[in-house]
Amino acid sequence: MYEYGRDVFYYETDKMGVVHHSNFVRWLEEARVAFFDDVGLPYTETEARGLFAPVISIGIRYKAFARFGDRFSVRLRMTRYTGVRFELEYEVYNGSGTLLAEGQSAHAFVGEDFKPAPLSRAMQEKHALMKENVEK
Amino acid sequence: MYEYGRDVFYYETDKMGVVHHSNFVRWLEEARVAFFDDVGLPYTETEARGLFAPVISIGIRYKAFARFGDRFSVRLRMTRYTGVRFELEYEVYNGSGTLLAEGQSAHAFVGEDFKPAPLSRAMQEKHALMKENVEK
Amino acid sequence: MYEYGRDVFYYETDKMGVVHHSNFVRWLEEARVAFFDDVGLPYTETEARGLFAPVISIGIRYKAFARFGDRFSVRLRMTRYTGVRFELEYEVYNGSGTLLAEGQSAHAFVGEDFKPAPLSRAMQEKHALMKENVEK
Amino acid sequence: MYEYGRDVFYYETDKMGVVHHSNFVRWLEEARVAFFDDVGLPYTETEARGLFAPVISIGIRYKAFARFGDRFSVRLRMTRYTGVRFELEYEVYNGSGTLLAEGQSAHAFVGEDFKPAPLSRAMQEKHALMKENVEK
Repeated sequence: MYEYGRDVFYYETDKMGVVHHSNFVRWLEEARVAFFDDVGLPYTETEARGLFAPVISIGIRYKAFARFGDRFSVRLRMTRYTGVRFELEYEVYNGSGTLLAEGQSAHAFVGEDFKPAPLSRAMQEKHALMKENVEK
Repeated sequence: MYEYGRDVFYYETDKMGVVHHSNFVRWLEEARVAFFDDVGLPYTETEARGLFAPVISIGIRYKAFARFGDRFSVRLRMTRYTGVRFELEYEVYNGSGTLLAEGQSAHAFVGEDFKPAPLSRAMQEKHALMKENVEK
Repeated sequence: MYEYGRDVFYYETDKMGVVHHSNFVRWLEEARVAFFDDVGLPYTETEARGLFAPVISIGIRYKAFARFGDRFSVRLRMTRYTGVRFELEYEVYNGSGTLLAEGQSAHAFVGEDFKPAPLSRAMQEKHALMKENVEK
Repeated sequence: MYEYGRDVFYYETDKMGVVHHSNFVRWLEEARVAFFDDVGLPYTETEARGLFAPVISIGIRYKAFARFGDRFSVRLRMTRYTGVRFELEYEVYNGSGTLLAEGQSAHAFVGEDFKPAPLSRAMQEKHALMKENVEK
């Protein structure tokens, strides 16, 4: 399981005094980008080949508030990869180890025309890497 | 079914050239705030009484990209209200009537201590209004 | 003087309970985009021709806080246009007419290579429009 | 001179393919928060005492674009402190050492009523710390 984390930013809070829920969606993206960097599939590289991985669906269940002055970490794993689609699961914790949220996202590789584009065709060696990194 | 809409902002796009998926979460909030204003339950009023309605869960399925230069509209309805919890369903369309996304969110009324606080106890007349506005 | 406005969004506030100062930069952009739509120089059209208008400098002096539940309006005018560069001045007000902020921004037309590109060369008729809309 | 940095996030880009200019304002805040943590004046501590430090003015001159896949760093120093007001200057660089932007911000300590509140009165020992950390 991959882990990504950083401090909460002031501008991520809202008038309730806690982190606005929309920022969790951005935190999952930060973690996802760091994960794919880590496994050797950086977004910069796939995008340089004209391949994008937009979000098809996202779901988050909020368990506790995140606060400024605290740190968050996201633990994630890729749970599925079909050659075109992939899915990830996430858990977000604060600095004390409290579970803040659980989430999942689904993605599809698309070309510059935004039509589905199998990674296996565009970047054969990356396809193998994706398969290796699926964690059931 | 209530409808809310506005133009897409430039700063809502990302390097894919389309609206970043996290902004849909914010659009649902904009629509929700406008809906509760419309039915006579403005956030400003409940918050002035020390009642907040944080998001417990959110889910979005993306169907098509939203673009700068276009307009979006959100159609929403409240599907459930228990006195403490409420749920909404959303559809997001572009200016041509193409379905961009479907979503749902669940919320709970909490007090300033972030503990569950029945609306029925704090604001009896609003409780009735909520029940009336549930649309199955 | 052109005027643009809308309600403050909940997610634009921060834990101080007021709108985060960075959002004023975004409000100026919203107003700028609406202004150029209004005068017949929509961003969508210049960008379709491969012309962008990035920000070269921005300055804001904050006078009063903006709050959720209120409305803001931006009054702006273009104060300078050289064929490549243009400058705007802004005043931001709340719904009661209180001045919230004053600002200014400078921009330059650039091509897809991000190098300066005179509007006059790419879109002659728009060049005339820009000159007409400068308000000293 | 204090230095703060991190990777550019995907969601910070816009349809021009580079970081949206409004995010530089947020980067300066991130750097400022890290700086005050570093010198022993964390925002969490002053805010716990009912003291806030809102932005009175901000100015940024953009020199080069920031890109996803790159890292940015902010070098900052406090240039003035009067007991109530303080000012900072910033330089933003990318990972190759290219200057991306220069900026400055001015702030005032205010109480929970948003009226000016001298730090010297509320937190005597922090007042001394501020004076020490001014760098001409």
